[in-house]
Amino acid sequence: MPPSRRDLLNTKKGFIVHKAVMEVVTVKDILAARELIQRFIKLTPVLTCSEANRIAKRNIYFKAEHLQTTGAFKIRGATNAVMKIKSKYGLDHPGVVTHSSGNHGQALACAANVAGLPCTIVVPKGSPSCKVEAIKGYGAKLVECFPSPTARVETMEKVCKETGQVFVSPYDHADVIAGQGTIGLELVEQIPDLDAVLVAISGGGLASGIAMAVKSVRPECKVYAVTPKGKMLEDCLRAGERLWPNPPQFLDTIADAIKLQQTGFNTFTLLKELAEKNVFEMSDEEMIEGMRFSFHRMKQVIEAAAGAAVAAALSDKMASLPAEIKNVAVILCGGNADIDNFPWYDSFKKAY
Amino acid sequence: MPPSRRDLLNTKKGFIVHKAVMEVVTVKDILAARELIQRFIKLTPVLTCSEANRIAKRNIYFKAEHLQTTGAFKIRGATNAVMKIKSKYGLDHPGVVTHSSGNHGQALACAANVAGLPCTIVVPKGSPSCKVEAIKGYGAKLVECFPSPTARVETMEKVCKETGQVFVSPYDHADVIAGQGTIGLELVEQIPDLDAVLVAISGGGLASGIAMAVKSVRPECKVYAVTPKGKMLEDCLRAGERLWPNPPQFLDTIADAIKLQQTGFNTFTLLKELAEKNVFEMSDEEMIEGMRFSFHRMKQVIEAAAGAAVAAALSDKMASLPAEIKNVAVILCGGNADIDNFPWYDSFKKAY
Repeated sequence: MPPSRRDLLNTKKGFIVHKAVMEVVTVKDILAARELIQRFIKLTPVLTCSEANRIAKRNIYFKAEHLQTTGAFKIRGATNAVMKIKSKYGLDHPGVVTHSSGNHGQALACAANVAGLPCTIVVPKGSPSCKVEAIKGYGAKLVECFPSPTARVETMEKVCKETGQVFVSPYDHADVIAGQGTIGLELVEQIPDLDAVLVAISGGGLASGIAMAVKSVRPECKVYAVTPKGKMLEDCLRAGERLWPNPPQFLDTIADAIKLQQTGFNTFTLLKELAEKNVFEMSDEEMIEGMRFSFHRMKQVIEAAAGAAVAAALSDKMASLPAEIKNVAVILCGGNADIDNFPWYDSFKKAY
Repeated sequence: MPPSRRDLLNTKKGFIVHKAVMEVVTVKDILAARELIQRFIKLTPVLTCSEANRIAKRNIYFKAEHLQTTGAFKIRGATNAVMKIKSKYGLDHPGVVTHSSGNHGQALACAANVAGLPCTIVVPKGSPSCKVEAIKGYGAKLVECFPSPTARVETMEKVCKETGQVFVSPYDHADVIAGQGTIGLELVEQIPDLDAVLVAISGGGLASGIAMAVKSVRPECKVYAVTPKGKMLEDCLRAGERLWPNPPQFLDTIADAIKLQQTGFNTFTLLKELAEKNVFEMSDEEMIEGMRFSFHRMKQVIEAAAGAAVAAALSDKMASLPAEIKNVAVILCGGNADIDNFPWYDSFKKAY
């Protein structure tokens, strides 16, 4: 059950705060994040496509976070975290660290570079050199580690101890969630009468931030998570419990940006309250079709995680949702696809 | 030499008409075209990219005609031609015909469909089925012909005779030139203090229409043509004569949208007056790099002809232009790249 209006608490500014989750992040944090980061990030446009509307049988609005600085939404949360540190401690602070060779690693390096704070990125050995070069380009220090979830955390903790740098989690950090939530504020301003949001989920920072923001303005708006196969999110949301096996696993998916099986702890608290239990699970083939639709029809380069959300919007499941869900936002979360290795060329490679 | 102010004649509306070419198309035709077509086409956005500005050492504005209806600018001219026929003769007219399996064929089929007029497209045998299907999707009649320039014209003329349909040339038609020129009106409105335009050229309808529109408002603005190797356009413009060998040839280029060696006759009259003699000739490799830059940095899917204009903007030649050329428009003329066959995968194919 989505939270009813009885669970909601009005604030003086007309926003609505969800009681159960306000200890993690509130809409006030998201409003403050917008204030802090808006000079550094882009207000991304919302794109439309008549063919998508026809297939989904409703109005689909694609939020173009693939056109965001660094090519993904991650810069929002990273900038919020870094700028909060800077405004509190100034430039004497030892800086920030994270473990990620992906979009969050680049985003944190970029945000720290803009802020003028030191930054270390723990990168698994064997990461693609283009990604490593991009991080270096932002002046961050790179530390290599063995490519396993455990080694990443251990190396990061060692860096924290030695340097005093603060860990900025890719998702389970209040400032990161609040930063990503600024997308939700933009959605309700850019899209008239928003009824639903489709958002791909990994650790859950993006989905929970957006849900918090959107539902504070329009509590009746539904937020649907989109995941790779094997995520078990629907079971967990329905049970209201973390049913995932431990230690944490990576899913077998082409979408490396959403390969975590487990969400974060804070984000799960938010999602239990705010997200629909009805989850869109997409196969690799469907994600590829979503990417191809975006390339072919919308002329937009998106990565597989964004392709998952597009595929969800074009799925039979979407078309069969009640007609009163008229206006649907689809988050194009990132555009950092490897242009030398689009996934639909795999079968092609095999043929040669 | 670009036309001096002495060659220019002021009209009452503050637009300037170039005497020598006003018998072909005037800015009034372009203003009328905008009035007629604006309900049917998109006012495409102008995109920016800090990395492009850095490389070109000036402000680059990418005009996103790849996001236009049918994925290319061609719909502007086609709609203008078709809607003029409809407004003059109503729906009793036998309709329109052209020979093209490319962007103009799709555009004319789409425009005729919207207008409710019959349309025939002469398509060379062996055209890619995706393009043929798109044309069929707009309800046009398809007539196959032998794949040679001469057979295309002969088949088209036969259709004209048998049906009474009117030939709408892809480029050498006053209404088509005026329609493409509406891009120029948008450019001077969207870009502050426009100093130059880079535009890929084949038959010349786009380049001459834009030049006419832009120079009517800002006569000092330079219009640079971008071509594949072997086009001979710079020699022709400098000589003021058509030096091309006959019969007309196709160039050996990956950019099928700009493979004509010769421009049209009307368009050449306009270009001699309005375009810079200094032409940007780009190799296939440079066009591919232009496409890759757009995919990688701007997340925009563009076809090779648009890649040529991007490559020109990023070239040493551009960087060495006088610093007073500050604001440069680059026309992203189309986005109809074959997503199963991006040209940089060719070497890749060979490797497997």
